[in-house]
Formats: sequence, structure tokens, C-alpha cells
Amino acid sequence: METFKVHLDKFIKINEEEFTSIFSFFQVLEVKKKENLMQEGELCKFKYFVLKGCLRKFFVNEKGVEQTTEFAIENWWLADNFAFEQQVKSQFNIQAVENGTIVIIDFQSQERLLEKHPMMERYFRMVYQRAYAAAEKRIRYLYEMNKEEYYIHFSTLYPWFIQRIPQYLLASFLGFTPEYLSEIRSKLRS
Amino acid sequence: METFKVHLDKFIKINEEEFTSIFSFFQVLEVKKKENLMQEGELCKFKYFVLKGCLRKFFVNEKGVEQTTEFAIENWWLADNFAFEQQVKSQFNIQAVENGTIVIIDFQSQERLLEKHPMMERYFRMVYQRAYAAAEKRIRYLYEMNKEEYYIHFSTLYPWFIQRIPQYLLASFLGFTPEYLSEIRSKLRS
Repeated sequence: METFKVHLDKFIKINEEEFTSIFSFFQVLEVKKKENLMQEGELCKFKYFVLKGCLRKFFVNEKGVEQTTEFAIENWWLADNFAFEQQVKSQFNIQAVENGTIVIIDFQSQERLLEKHPMMERYFRMVYQRAYAAAEKRIRYLYEMNKEEYYIHFSTLYPWFIQRIPQYLLASFLGFTPEYLSEIRSKLRS
Repeated sequence: METFKVHLDKFIKINEEEFTSIFSFFQVLEVKKKENLMQEGELCKFKYFVLKGCLRKFFVNEKGVEQTTEFAIENWWLADNFAFEQQVKSQFNIQAVENGTIVIIDFQSQERLLEKHPMMERYFRMVYQRAYAAAEKRIRYLYEMNKEEYYIHFSTLYPWFIQRIPQYLLASFLGFTPEYLSEIRSKLRS
């Protein structure tokens, strides 16, 4: 709970009393590694905020292979934002990569929260603005770099992340087979 | 001006007086086809909203080829959001595709606007939320589809857009050469 307050403090000014009221709109969830939080074809009922741990979003491609499109670690949100906003069925899955603690909010609670605490509009505006800016950068990389270059770029920017997550998930994010990822890694080491 | 009011009305409730005050934070710009609004290496001073016309955002790749990553038509915003938020130099260019009318706002004016009219936080939260949701979908397509499939998908969803913009820009957006785009189009027609 204190972690979430520290996070909000980076964006908006709220006192303890306001925070207690704001936090009452959220639920806290303990998750186990590989636990499925949302599955393709289900309504995207919640948005997920990582207090501790790591989540991933993925879809299953036509060959039956899981393709990870996003990870979220501490202080990041994860959702199928299109399905959440429209309250329709999702075309993605959300799964825990590690044991962890997650804060969630459903659509109706979010609406009530924003009505009662309009300053949370500012918080979510800034969160989405940053997320969108990051997505714009990522789209450029997907245009500009081949998969090997993207791996090098990614591992230069986030070496600690490469260490943290299982290699087969990293491969799934980069669009590699795990074997090809091993090959690139040994090539780069040599 | 009335067009912008109609646009805002879709997101927030404001009266005429509030709108007049809100609109005073923006500037209106008439732009000519191919006019450069922002160039790589410059500060991203403004965010651009299209009242009439079409803008595109592009970068020049290492082969010297222009790569279009986004278009904005009526009622869409366009900016290098990362550079705008951080107030740093942009790695993109923004150019008018058609003669048009654009509404712009600079960073300081936006801050003052949000302070004076906090309901605009809600407006921008919803705009960014939608833009981010669209970017998430697009990232999935970039993983899932090859270029030809993406063209078919894009032309099925937005046939009127395909008709509207010059073919060399569509090719630049899809990562094709104009010749390859012609080939695909004649293949699909036959």
C-alpha cells in the first residue's frame, strides 16, 4: 500500500486521507508464477498494476506459438486497454511471470474513482501519455531494426531485465525461437 | 473553432464560456501540402491537432529513405510525445500531407491550460488512452502480419484512407517500395 502511495506521489499531490479513499477503489492480489489473470476471449475486466513481480501479455499466433507483446514490472500498468475501455472480449492473455503482488481496478470502480477524485484523471493522463510515448518509440524500432538489432538494443537498455526473465519468454517477446536466441547470445559473447 | 468544440464535447461537458477560455490556449495554423511543421533534431515544441487535412510523422532511415510511422487526419492528435513531454529534441519529422487547418499547443500553454481547466486532464487522459490502445493493437499486427497481410488488413479497415493519400506515402508507411505496393495492388485486383 505504501509502495502505491510513493508511486502516486510522483505524479500528483495527495494527502493520507485522500490516498486511503483512492486506495479503497483498488483490490490487492497475490499472484503465483504462471498464474493466468486474463485469458483470450474473456472480458478485460481489470487493469493490473505491479507492486512486486512481473506480468506479461501475450497472444497465441496461428501456428499455436505464444507471442509476448508486453511485460510489466514494478510500477507499471498492464491491460488490454482497448478491451478494457470498450468492455469487450480481449484478444490477449495476461499471466504472472513471477510470484508477486498486483493492484487491480475494474472499469466501474475506475469511473467512480475518477468522479470522486478528479486528480486521478491527471495521474492516468500522465501514465497513458508515457505509455503511448513508449509505444511510439517501440513502433519505430519495429520498423527500423531487424530482430537481432532489436535484441542488442533491448539488452543494452535493459541488461537487468534480460537477467531477470526466463529466456524462453524473452525469445517469445523478440519473436525468436529460444534456439535462435541462444545462438545470437553466444555469437555476441564471442 | 466550432469543429474543435464539437470534438471536445464528445469527451467532456463544457459551456461556451469555458470553451472560449480553453481555446485561447491553442493557436490555429493554416498549412500547405508538404509544409514541414517539425524537423528531426528540433525541439518538439507543439502537439498538433488536425481540424482539416492530414499530417504525417516520419523518420529518415540509415539508407536515407523516409519511413512514415503515423498519419493524423481530422480529429486526431500528432506529436513526438516523448520529445514533447520531456521537452527534448525530436528524432521525427512532421509534415502536412494536404493543405489544411491545424490546432497547436505548446508545452507551457498545455500546463497552464490543465491548471486552469482540470477537466482537460480528463479529455487528454481519454485521448491518450485511445491512442495507446490503438498503438497496442498496431504492435500486435506488426508481430502477427507480414507486410502484404498488413496492407490487406489496412485497406479493408480504411479503404477511404487508401484512396485519400498518395501511394508513395502509403508505401512509406507500410515499409514497401512504391513499386512493390503497385505489384501487390495489381495482384489483389486480379
